[in-house]
Amino acid sequence: MEDRLGAFVPGAIIHRAPRGAGPLTDLSFAAKDLFDVAGLVTGCGNPDWANTHEPAEADAWAVDALLSAGAALRGKTVTDEISLGLLGINKFYGTPRNPRAPDRVPGGSSSGSASAVAGGLVDIALGTDSGGSVRIPASFCGLYGLRPTHGCIPIAGMMTQAPSFDTVGYFADDAATFARAGSVLLREQIIDALPDEIVVASDCFALADEPVGYALLPALERLRRIIRVTEARLAEGDLTQWSRHQRGLQRSEFHATFRDWIDRVNPRFSAEVAGAFADDGRISESDIAAAQAFRASATQRLDRLLDGRRMLCLPTSPILPIARDARLSEMRLAVHRIVDLTCIAGLTGCPQVNLPMATIGAVPVGLSLIGWRGGDAALIGAACAIARDLSIGVPQEPR
Amino acid sequence: MEDRLGAFVPGAIIHRAPRGAGPLTDLSFAAKDLFDVAGLVTGCGNPDWANTHEPAEADAWAVDALLSAGAALRGKTVTDEISLGLLGINKFYGTPRNPRAPDRVPGGSSSGSASAVAGGLVDIALGTDSGGSVRIPASFCGLYGLRPTHGCIPIAGMMTQAPSFDTVGYFADDAATFARAGSVLLREQIIDALPDEIVVASDCFALADEPVGYALLPALERLRRIIRVTEARLAEGDLTQWSRHQRGLQRSEFHATFRDWIDRVNPRFSAEVAGAFADDGRISESDIAAAQAFRASATQRLDRLLDGRRMLCLPTSPILPIARDARLSEMRLAVHRIVDLTCIAGLTGCPQVNLPMATIGAVPVGLSLIGWRGGDAALIGAACAIARDLSIGVPQEPR
Repeated sequence: MEDRLGAFVPGAIIHRAPRGAGPLTDLSFAAKDLFDVAGLVTGCGNPDWANTHEPAEADAWAVDALLSAGAALRGKTVTDEISLGLLGINKFYGTPRNPRAPDRVPGGSSSGSASAVAGGLVDIALGTDSGGSVRIPASFCGLYGLRPTHGCIPIAGMMTQAPSFDTVGYFADDAATFARAGSVLLREQIIDALPDEIVVASDCFALADEPVGYALLPALERLRRIIRVTEARLAEGDLTQWSRHQRGLQRSEFHATFRDWIDRVNPRFSAEVAGAFADDGRISESDIAAAQAFRASATQRLDRLLDGRRMLCLPTSPILPIARDARLSEMRLAVHRIVDLTCIAGLTGCPQVNLPMATIGAVPVGLSLIGWRGGDAALIGAACAIARDLSIGVPQEPR
Repeated sequence: MEDRLGAFVPGAIIHRAPRGAGPLTDLSFAAKDLFDVAGLVTGCGNPDWANTHEPAEADAWAVDALLSAGAALRGKTVTDEISLGLLGINKFYGTPRNPRAPDRVPGGSSSGSASAVAGGLVDIALGTDSGGSVRIPASFCGLYGLRPTHGCIPIAGMMTQAPSFDTVGYFADDAATFARAGSVLLREQIIDALPDEIVVASDCFALADEPVGYALLPALERLRRIIRVTEARLAEGDLTQWSRHQRGLQRSEFHATFRDWIDRVNPRFSAEVAGAFADDGRISESDIAAAQAFRASATQRLDRLLDGRRMLCLPTSPILPIARDARLSEMRLAVHRIVDLTCIAGLTGCPQVNLPMATIGAVPVGLSLIGWRGGDAALIGAACAIARDLSIGVPQEPR
């Protein structure tokens, strides 16, 4: 396999055969370099992390699950440094190409996984999603991508970042493959079935740039033809309150995760990632308590909206993928805006799926559905039914 | 030449012959990688700086001055990234060895220059000193080192950092070589002569760790035998006010220097250096005005103390060189404390010389003299007279 996309960590293209036959026989997969693969160092996108850690002794649960289901592992993919980033930029290993928008970022932090799937190098790729790290590259690269219910797919052998937000997610380029892999990772049958109702979150759409909202209008129109579609505001007040609290909590958790390592190693980071550690990440107990209370009430609010097997519909990202050569200030603004929408599943623990239902020119624009907690299989089933009924991304033959 | 110390930038050991004979004939020198050498990229200790800059077209003034005076250039030395650092730690090119305290840092940012001179690889090395970058490695490596009067040695072809603080300095291992090079760089004759009076700054000594102050006591005793030594407080109030204002001003200036490049390039930094950019470096006009006013009054205060060709005596560093494997938090604390003393010459523009007059075990402890503005030649002459009268570092034959 030639990695013309820079999707794989240099030297980490491998071939590990499946552990027998299973539902994923004849499929290949890659794993973000946050997942342990026995015998390899889990490098986490940063050379100083790689330098200061030993090779993994065992495969991560998700890697083992896919190998055991018959898929072959083809390597480990580039990630934003220590999983902090939503654009897919990596100054040490290079920024993977976005095959569908070559001048733009692929999205991150599961950048190489999305790039490898979108470029046809593998059928499935594992990612992680704490603040949007599967959903955003799925949106930017035009893929199906799942952030599951928090706690639903075992994270054993995956590097944690912010434990109350961390999830194992994955990508596929067509709905059928998406469902096959989902069934294995969720250990549930996936049944193609449209949801009873889709609730369009008007305040989420209001945060999107005009071209993004405009590009998604035809997709909403098509959904209206096959599903009951209603509209509601997600937030009682200002939706950007959600991301404010999410940032505080996630920051506090990832600082706790990395603080001692940074102090011990004085690692190298790009200025982008170093900015995440500009302060010491400690927030006051009263701020934590306020954010936790907000999280609880936001979760109740979303639970009520989704009651009755409804799914919430929103743009995955309020912005298009930015240029690969964007300035740091533009990168920071982009990340800030993205989190305004990705925080919703993060705060509430609900699953979210990206549907590659629109483009502007060739640039993908993702539409998201958020399901109820534990409704991951129904969410994937809805993605399949929508793809079938609207003839999106006709399933491909296994490569 | 074998660079067993890691003092030179990889690939930047060269041999450039002198431009004819002169006062430095038979001496060799190295230049910190902040000085232009025609045909080479001035890398400034950071690979992303090197990647984004073209080779220099001409030699820096100081490089040209030494070549023209008969010295041979042997290469470019490692510096703390973009000259920000006082410990000599560089995560990209490696931390040069301190030949006199191998388990400790060499001091920085002119780390490789000090290492190369202390290790006998060259006779003279150019450094730069904005916040202490010659004085500290001179102290930590046991060398003579000059931070000149601000503006006194031309900075043409040297990368600037904080223009109102930036100076060209240099190192030598013995007083005679120190004087020979000083005469060339200052374009003045150096006459060995003791100062009329040395004023021991009691509040500077009070900031030093006990072992540092204790180690310097015998040196002060020896000076008392040959010079009139008095004692005074430098500051009217709390001496640490000096460094507070110096940090604000220097920070504001180096942010202005690097802001656009960082925004454009998203460069990689060690966490230590990234911390310097944790905020945007903008300080309010009122804070700048207050710092400028403080700077003016501090300068007047020092001018009065030095009136009558007196020299101020203080520890170069309040602490010993820290361990090479120190934690980031310990590194930050060390830098903070060092600046409490190095800020004095920085704020006032006065010249300062490090005298290698003490050790603890084998670890060097530097004593400093600060002279009046423009009194650089007298300061070097005092260093020579002290070395002669106290038989310090018997001058060596040219290598």
